[in-house]
Amino acid sequence: MTSTDRLARVVLSHACEPGDPASASLLDQLGAERAVEAQAVAKPNSALDRRIAEVDPVRVLAQAREHGIRFVTPEDPEWPADLSGLNEIAHLGMGGQPPGLWVRGPASLQHLAQSVAIVGARASTVYGDQLAADIAATVATAGYTVVSGGALGIDAAAHRGALAAGAGTVAVLARGLDGVYPQANAPMLWEIARDHALVSEQAPGSLPTRLRFLARNRLIVALTIGTVLVEAATRSGALNTAAWAEELSRPVMGVPGPVTSAASAGVHDRIRSGGATMVTCGAEVLELLGGHGQYLVPVQRGPERRHDALSKADQRVFEAVPAGEPAPITEIAHEVAGHARDVDRALCRLRELGLVRLLEAGWVVTSG
Amino acid sequence: MTSTDRLARVVLSHACEPGDPASASLLDQLGAERAVEAQAVAKPNSALDRRIAEVDPVRVLAQAREHGIRFVTPEDPEWPADLSGLNEIAHLGMGGQPPGLWVRGPASLQHLAQSVAIVGARASTVYGDQLAADIAATVATAGYTVVSGGALGIDAAAHRGALAAGAGTVAVLARGLDGVYPQANAPMLWEIARDHALVSEQAPGSLPTRLRFLARNRLIVALTIGTVLVEAATRSGALNTAAWAEELSRPVMGVPGPVTSAASAGVHDRIRSGGATMVTCGAEVLELLGGHGQYLVPVQRGPERRHDALSKADQRVFEAVPAGEPAPITEIAHEVAGHARDVDRALCRLRELGLVRLLEAGWVVTSG
Repeated sequence: MTSTDRLARVVLSHACEPGDPASASLLDQLGAERAVEAQAVAKPNSALDRRIAEVDPVRVLAQAREHGIRFVTPEDPEWPADLSGLNEIAHLGMGGQPPGLWVRGPASLQHLAQSVAIVGARASTVYGDQLAADIAATVATAGYTVVSGGALGIDAAAHRGALAAGAGTVAVLARGLDGVYPQANAPMLWEIARDHALVSEQAPGSLPTRLRFLARNRLIVALTIGTVLVEAATRSGALNTAAWAEELSRPVMGVPGPVTSAASAGVHDRIRSGGATMVTCGAEVLELLGGHGQYLVPVQRGPERRHDALSKADQRVFEAVPAGEPAPITEIAHEVAGHARDVDRALCRLRELGLVRLLEAGWVVTSG
Repeated sequence: MTSTDRLARVVLSHACEPGDPASASLLDQLGAERAVEAQAVAKPNSALDRRIAEVDPVRVLAQAREHGIRFVTPEDPEWPADLSGLNEIAHLGMGGQPPGLWVRGPASLQHLAQSVAIVGARASTVYGDQLAADIAATVATAGYTVVSGGALGIDAAAHRGALAAGAGTVAVLARGLDGVYPQANAPMLWEIARDHALVSEQAPGSLPTRLRFLARNRLIVALTIGTVLVEAATRSGALNTAAWAEELSRPVMGVPGPVTSAASAGVHDRIRSGGATMVTCGAEVLELLGGHGQYLVPVQRGPERRHDALSKADQRVFEAVPAGEPAPITEIAHEVAGHARDVDRALCRLRELGLVRLLEAGWVVTSG
């Protein structure tokens, strides 16, 4: 027996635009059933009113079920609690928690409590794709679900990185889950539906529009605990996602790239403005997300140099050996105020370590 | 008639190691003449004492002059006042202002009051070289003298960028200016000596050693108002330069690169640790150096999109057009709650703007 709250939420999901702040506000204040009534009363003969009148929620749910799509609402245990943060935010004329989420796939939305968004340009470069896949594989292997928008470019690379690592990934789409978008990614998206989960706030049959992509971006951010921006041109949908993350106070991480690459310019802007923290690998993402020292990045160190272990006397001799034109032993002895015999022994030890070389004109530091 | 102070400084320059904090401290406290006496008294029969006894400063100055090398001290108008900051700092066992600077070339050191250091890895990449040259050309054209160490890789690219822009550049060498180092850069360095200036705190005849390279790095920082780090591996001399800049409270700027490039790893570390500000072009360097809004970087914006200028009604129709599967006009009209005739007109206007396309199955947003 489906609850009346759930049925009312199906109606709202079907009739209202994703991210419409007015509908969300009514839902938040009145509850689903009274929100449906209020909307119909407030705008008689409007498109919204007509859509509300048209929809048969029992039938919509049944048809969705035939597609293997379930409708998750706050009364379900797998409902992501973090979504309520959306009720506090209005950004670019959007806001509010969706009435429910349509889910297609075996994975529980509870996994999203430990999840990372990896997003970026559709017009990505090979560099960006490889990094997105690499970071996705690292964080997914560490137990985070990789969430992205299923789009071409960085999104697809992130999903593929997680899949290749045999780990969990969720694609949040800007259309009803009776189909997938974009078609070019259909095989990957159906694989995600089969083994993990597709998520949408749009009812089956609903198609993508520009505003729905923007609403979807806000949902990706709200479902995850941090967002990694891999490549984004200076005006790009991925930056919209990052803006939502700032609004929702979720950490935004940016991966730098060549400054000559337009695909990285938007990321660099974000980092420079303080809107994103620079990360260069998956381990650094984990470190930022962990927040409790769970994941500590080993400090990158150059190789230990052989002369680090020299005796103080040998070290002094080594430092007196020129890097350029060779110097005769007398000059080096003069330099360190030592006897030529002692200096000669030190130079031989240094030569055995490969640190100096004896040329015809004298001693010189081994280059490199 | 050469002053006794100047002659005493020649003796100190000739006898003491660059950056030796003990000698610098004596010079700072006692003045040059008494510092020379004190050193000889303090360490009789030491190497330093012998070097002090050996040197004939009048002859050293005359020989230098034959090479076109002048000795600049605090009594000269071109002495860079900022160098005194070195007396406050001891870092890695080094510190202190040099007794004088040896200069070879027509440029006055006064130009260094408006100068930028551009340094980086010797093992640079083509990417790094191009950026260093590009940034050097931009800041040099804006009136800043580009200072670097004359080394292979980024240093040479920075000098060359300034030279190519017909602007000023100074190479600070870790050897006496009777010769140049490294030999591979000799033609460029002699060009700088002819048209601009080579600078060293080492007397003619003095050769490079590892410690002298480190001392030279501190001098580059002290002579400039900011340092740009273009490429640096995780353990690199360029990072030593950046550390000096932090010690001297001069701004350090880092240019990011591919995170897959070892040559950029040290720069990324600096930026991540807060030790360097990320810059992606010469204009951003100027902006940071100016500090008074002299150089304001135009905010990078994506191209104006054509639909930014649409009427509100057309905008609504545009937003209802699917990005994926085409929608028939009736569906779009339903979506916007408009008459099909009005929507049809709007779609035609949008098509003229190239924003939507009519396919057999209906209307769809033009991709890209």
